[in-house]
Amino acid sequence: MRDVRVIVWGIGSMGSGIGRDLLLNKKGVSIVGAIDADPAKIGKDLGEIMGTGSKTGITISDDPDAVLSQPADLVFLSTSSFTREVYPCLKKIIASGKNVITTAEEMAEPTVNCPDLANKLDILAKERGVTVLGTGVNPGFVLDTLIITLSGVCQTVDRIKAARINDLSPFGPTVMKTQGVGATKEEFLEGVETGLIVGHIGFRESISLIAGAIGWELDRIEETREPILSSVERETPHVRVKPGEVAGCRHIARGFMGNREVITLEHPQQIHPHLENVKTGDYITIEGTPTITWSDESEIPGGIGTIAVAVNMMPRVINASPGLKTMLDLPVVSAHMGDIRKKITKLD
Amino acid sequence: MRDVRVIVWGIGSMGSGIGRDLLLNKKGVSIVGAIDADPAKIGKDLGEIMGTGSKTGITISDDPDAVLSQPADLVFLSTSSFTREVYPCLKKIIASGKNVITTAEEMAEPTVNCPDLANKLDILAKERGVTVLGTGVNPGFVLDTLIITLSGVCQTVDRIKAARINDLSPFGPTVMKTQGVGATKEEFLEGVETGLIVGHIGFRESISLIAGAIGWELDRIEETREPILSSVERETPHVRVKPGEVAGCRHIARGFMGNREVITLEHPQQIHPHLENVKTGDYITIEGTPTITWSDESEIPGGIGTIAVAVNMMPRVINASPGLKTMLDLPVVSAHMGDIRKKITKLD
Repeated sequence: MRDVRVIVWGIGSMGSGIGRDLLLNKKGVSIVGAIDADPAKIGKDLGEIMGTGSKTGITISDDPDAVLSQPADLVFLSTSSFTREVYPCLKKIIASGKNVITTAEEMAEPTVNCPDLANKLDILAKERGVTVLGTGVNPGFVLDTLIITLSGVCQTVDRIKAARINDLSPFGPTVMKTQGVGATKEEFLEGVETGLIVGHIGFRESISLIAGAIGWELDRIEETREPILSSVERETPHVRVKPGEVAGCRHIARGFMGNREVITLEHPQQIHPHLENVKTGDYITIEGTPTITWSDESEIPGGIGTIAVAVNMMPRVINASPGLKTMLDLPVVSAHMGDIRKKITKLD
Repeated sequence: MRDVRVIVWGIGSMGSGIGRDLLLNKKGVSIVGAIDADPAKIGKDLGEIMGTGSKTGITISDDPDAVLSQPADLVFLSTSSFTREVYPCLKKIIASGKNVITTAEEMAEPTVNCPDLANKLDILAKERGVTVLGTGVNPGFVLDTLIITLSGVCQTVDRIKAARINDLSPFGPTVMKTQGVGATKEEFLEGVETGLIVGHIGFRESISLIAGAIGWELDRIEETREPILSSVERETPHVRVKPGEVAGCRHIARGFMGNREVITLEHPQQIHPHLENVKTGDYITIEGTPTITWSDESEIPGGIGTIAVAVNMMPRVINASPGLKTMLDLPVVSAHMGDIRKKITKLD
């Protein structure tokens, strides 16, 4: 039996990670093409850019049409967080007759921000007989799929509260800026106003997925972004926060039915939370019959988690009926330690 | 739009609970028939037996053929734990052209104990265009589906360890006997030998589901049942345990690849575990990249959980392609607070 053939489009930290996971950890899969627009990567061997230590024989191309003209089962697309920005790429991939998994956060539930584009993608995918999925660790897993799955043991649900408390310390200067780390309180509030400080991308998508699954018709979703003011000095290689300055962004999203707050998702992201005795972790409480409360000992890591969920959904997406899907339309995700081809029902 | 029509077969604690959940908590569903072989229940109104306080207009019948001759979308079957025992009922349900969800533990993965019957059920279900699912809280959720779902954030998995630590105190005399509560150590060991003390039913099914999802080909599954000897006096309305006697059964199942123990599932069931400082709860550790550890604050309740998972899978089963399914073949389970008909794609 031939290998599952995949193309990786976007060789940034997610795309490189997906490529590495496929090469090092997955059996029965071959990468047959790689696309990126960065002049520093074009023409280089994929292995060199992914840092796997050996050549792959795949040269990174800036010509999507050429790369997509070859046969492949699935494309991993990691070029942007936004549906509007990945839409032209998705159209090309669908037109070439390939399934696609994208880590674009908004694509976890694209009908939230771009219902028209979502509808077009669904029609195009059905016409070409391929499947389109947006996923990742969050949105895509911790604050939506996992919550929804846990609700399966409940006869009734009154309210859902969840928090993902993480440590931004390993991230680079871009993340520090978009989370407001190192800003003064005034700079932070202004940054939120102007849109430079974004917090987490994906809350509306997660809340919509949860509400849709539970069968709640929400009247509105509200989001707040507050500065996490540090009372101690905190420092990373990229930023220094003095007492009184901003260590991160406490981003909270709330889903309402009338005036009843039924979903509360919280994602405070800061550097060195332990310096003020804040424990990282993922916390899920579903109030209902029964009330259940689950948590982990430390947060599911974001980068590895997104890469894993995207790669692990590959057989589910290839097996699926055509169209635009969410994580709730497909069978449960799982790790894959065996030959991935054994999970695929329709490999020619 | 008409209601989803269901029949409840087996009006014991599970069947009654399913009926109550449908009647009290679910919108867009009607119970159209009820079957039980117990002379004390036959001819009574279903509401009387379920203890919902009001009549339902559904009379409990001991004639499956008559009840199944009317139109319905799905049958809930809760008459036995074993595939061999529910097989004749499943055949009748399938022949009548209805989908079925059974709480029979072995049916969570019937190929483990009865591969021939599983194969026949799959063929029959496909011929009649209906879907068959076995599920519950365990097997069906905590020690399989939930573990598998959590593994979705892992790039590699080395080993899985999980424990479900519960309190048997609310249960009646039958459970006390099958778990060996109140026995001496010698009586317990003899009971395990003769098969009177069974421990948990479903470990082989859960381990097979996990191994299948992860892609591990196991060489063997081992089970041990050890007495939990009490050092204090423990008492419930149905049993009294003196120091030195058995307070419950520590049932452990292990899945091996060669000599490598890759899956360890533990389910110690005893009365009043808190008397010896044992905390109830569900604990999942997946060792890999990354290692993740999830737990809850108190165990997901068994009875309510099984009822909820079975009822909550209803739209997934009605929407599914025909055949015998496991929880891993269908989209993720979720609670349902809205009209269940909105979740069903093919209601005539």
